[in-house]
Amino acid sequence: MADTTGTKTAGSPSGPSSEPSAAAPAGVSRRRLLGTAGAVGAGALVVGAGAGAAGAQAVGGRPDPLTSIGSTKYPFHGPRQAGIVQPAQAHAHLVAFDLAPGSGRKAAAALLRRWSATAADLMSGETPRDDDLGIALDAGPSALTVTFGFGHSFFDRTGLTDRRPAALEPLPSFSADALDPKRSDGDLWIQIGSDDALVAFHALRLLQRKAGETARLRWQMNGFNRTPGATSHPATGRNLMGQIDGTNNPKPSDAAFDKHVFVPDGRDAAAGPAEAWMAGGSYAVVRRIRMLLDSWDHLSLERQERIIGRRKSDGAPLSGGSETTPVDLQKVGPDGALAIAGDAHIRVASPASNRGAAMLRRPFSYHDGFRDDGAPDAGLLFVCWQADPMKGFVPVQRKLDRGDGLSRFLSHEASALFAVPGGCAEGEYVGQRLLEG
Amino acid sequence: MADTTGTKTAGSPSGPSSEPSAAAPAGVSRRRLLGTAGAVGAGALVVGAGAGAAGAQAVGGRPDPLTSIGSTKYPFHGPRQAGIVQPAQAHAHLVAFDLAPGSGRKAAAALLRRWSATAADLMSGETPRDDDLGIALDAGPSALTVTFGFGHSFFDRTGLTDRRPAALEPLPSFSADALDPKRSDGDLWIQIGSDDALVAFHALRLLQRKAGETARLRWQMNGFNRTPGATSHPATGRNLMGQIDGTNNPKPSDAAFDKHVFVPDGRDAAAGPAEAWMAGGSYAVVRRIRMLLDSWDHLSLERQERIIGRRKSDGAPLSGGSETTPVDLQKVGPDGALAIAGDAHIRVASPASNRGAAMLRRPFSYHDGFRDDGAPDAGLLFVCWQADPMKGFVPVQRKLDRGDGLSRFLSHEASALFAVPGGCAEGEYVGQRLLEG
Repeated sequence: MADTTGTKTAGSPSGPSSEPSAAAPAGVSRRRLLGTAGAVGAGALVVGAGAGAAGAQAVGGRPDPLTSIGSTKYPFHGPRQAGIVQPAQAHAHLVAFDLAPGSGRKAAAALLRRWSATAADLMSGETPRDDDLGIALDAGPSALTVTFGFGHSFFDRTGLTDRRPAALEPLPSFSADALDPKRSDGDLWIQIGSDDALVAFHALRLLQRKAGETARLRWQMNGFNRTPGATSHPATGRNLMGQIDGTNNPKPSDAAFDKHVFVPDGRDAAAGPAEAWMAGGSYAVVRRIRMLLDSWDHLSLERQERIIGRRKSDGAPLSGGSETTPVDLQKVGPDGALAIAGDAHIRVASPASNRGAAMLRRPFSYHDGFRDDGAPDAGLLFVCWQADPMKGFVPVQRKLDRGDGLSRFLSHEASALFAVPGGCAEGEYVGQRLLEG
Repeated sequence: MADTTGTKTAGSPSGPSSEPSAAAPAGVSRRRLLGTAGAVGAGALVVGAGAGAAGAQAVGGRPDPLTSIGSTKYPFHGPRQAGIVQPAQAHAHLVAFDLAPGSGRKAAAALLRRWSATAADLMSGETPRDDDLGIALDAGPSALTVTFGFGHSFFDRTGLTDRRPAALEPLPSFSADALDPKRSDGDLWIQIGSDDALVAFHALRLLQRKAGETARLRWQMNGFNRTPGATSHPATGRNLMGQIDGTNNPKPSDAAFDKHVFVPDGRDAAAGPAEAWMAGGSYAVVRRIRMLLDSWDHLSLERQERIIGRRKSDGAPLSGGSETTPVDLQKVGPDGALAIAGDAHIRVASPASNRGAAMLRRPFSYHDGFRDDGAPDAGLLFVCWQADPMKGFVPVQRKLDRGDGLSRFLSHEASALFAVPGGCAEGEYVGQRLLEG
């Protein structure tokens, strides 16, 4: 999963929340220690936030379940959009729209202005003035984030082809692809995340209503992660294969975090107009990856662990240590074989195997019931973030596509790539530098 | 929604949890007071549990978000099954199985024994001995409940036709029905609820695996409610139409609660063998009710409120007062018209309009994306509980079917009725009195 920091912060990636309450010491991870399963053990709560390279600030520190779940609030306005470095929420809607025929640049600008104003209200827990849907009434903002992106086709439809960044070129094909074009791509993308299902659904309904006649739904997917407080594990989560996922995600405290994840703020000078409007932005790769769970679950635990390269129980690499111990790809076991197999997922995906390529994974699980063939329609809504997909997702996926032992238990069913611009100041809207630049 | 008590208790309906910690005063509702939306206001938490007629006992009292979400635990064993009077959880899977050809009474008994043992382990937060799925590792029991029921067809397939209770006769047809038989009925039913999505999914996968060759999946649906702590509203929830739902649900503290909801424990004497095994049990009506949200959302707020009979903002009846004020069906407004319209949902559904018929509603919302026609595939997984469907769901639905102004915004897409026997003691399994009686 995608808790990228090991901390939960209510600050924006580049500044503190506008309503800090009792401040907690920076650098203290929020760790929730749960009594061991099976006993209501002694509970403990240490609240805080790490001040990482991304600029996350400590706020909160209120040991109250309501504060942490219902009233966690992220600011909409700021140099970067929310929904990238914040911990992945318990619920998500990923939704793509296509501009309606006749909707050009001007209509798109008006739409992004409406959407931005609505998102700002919703994320702050306000009910927008003309919103009588009521679905989120009584609820706090519940860590809601709303993130907007532009797909490759958006630029042609709005006469902005010359502003399309090179990094938005379509992804190459991979041999494991079984892509459904109807659930792939799209002119516009919204990622909605919240720790409450009704808050998330409300945002989806309201933003769709605000699309009016300008844009039409293309595809929509629902995802989930652990509910905050349900697990004793402080940082990473588990996917539907039962594996701890996200251990080696880059952390905002890493020196190269910003370089890997965000388009530099100062690119304006060096880059042309096709890049300048993306300063402070990021590129999101979205893949619907079905897990062949019936096949996977029939493997022995030992076989599963060899395919991943980590122990299932605690995520420790098979080269030894605990979950956070660096993986030793060279280690040889007493039998003379590599401790981490040649086709183990963590070997093939590791930055060391990919000339340092790195991306920030922030996925959600999905489960849409059962398919006609009886198999669960379930897996991962893989979302990853990088400054340049050609230095993040693409080289890693090329490697995985060829050599990953896990890949025969996965089916990539949909794919999309979006340019997610930087955030906006109050009174502005996301994408304004593109649409009015 | 279905929080039936206004309190959240970790006790079984008929006895205290086996691990009481700091006891809270009985009769003190657990109310979670959230700062008003839009401000991180002063939080407050009062934890306790009401000791109602159903015998709920106070346990817990721990003001810790992890304890309340991750470690809320309900006992599997007891005179009644869990998942009926406990607050509806944030996540649910409803799943029906049919016995495989050749699976008779003996195989069904073995299956219920396996399922009961697995459910008991999972609900206590234990990992069953032969479970290496791993999906719920690290997580607390997270309020997991697993509830088993038998459908009409089960009895013929197991040679137990003479033990089938009269109350399990198929429901009558209603004019609003547009039922899909593939998603209706079934030999066996499991209701899984948890406040964590992965805990719920894990239970689903493991119970399905335990079905082995004995039973095959017939249908499965996923539902949700608010995350505990996301809302300042203490008891009732909202549905996807934005309405507060569940205000007039019977409460365990009501004198007639047990009579309405549970088959009497002492029925053995008076009833024949077709009823005795259901002592302490209940009948669950399950309806997949799609909401025509696009039509609904286009109505004015005033029109919506007239159709329901309550204010959307706070659930107060249009006859005056606050949410919990008794509805005055006779009240006439200054314009000479009834305050609660003749076809208002709360009038037609009220016990006063149905000769006292009452049921315990405990629904979940659902949202399965969008249909081919562009409408949201979303609505209510309506689950209601009663001692006799002919004195609960059936008369109320007959009334609604004819006179409810809300019904033209709803489509009943699936329907099922299950006999849910009483609980079992340790070493026994659910349904044992039927299958070995």
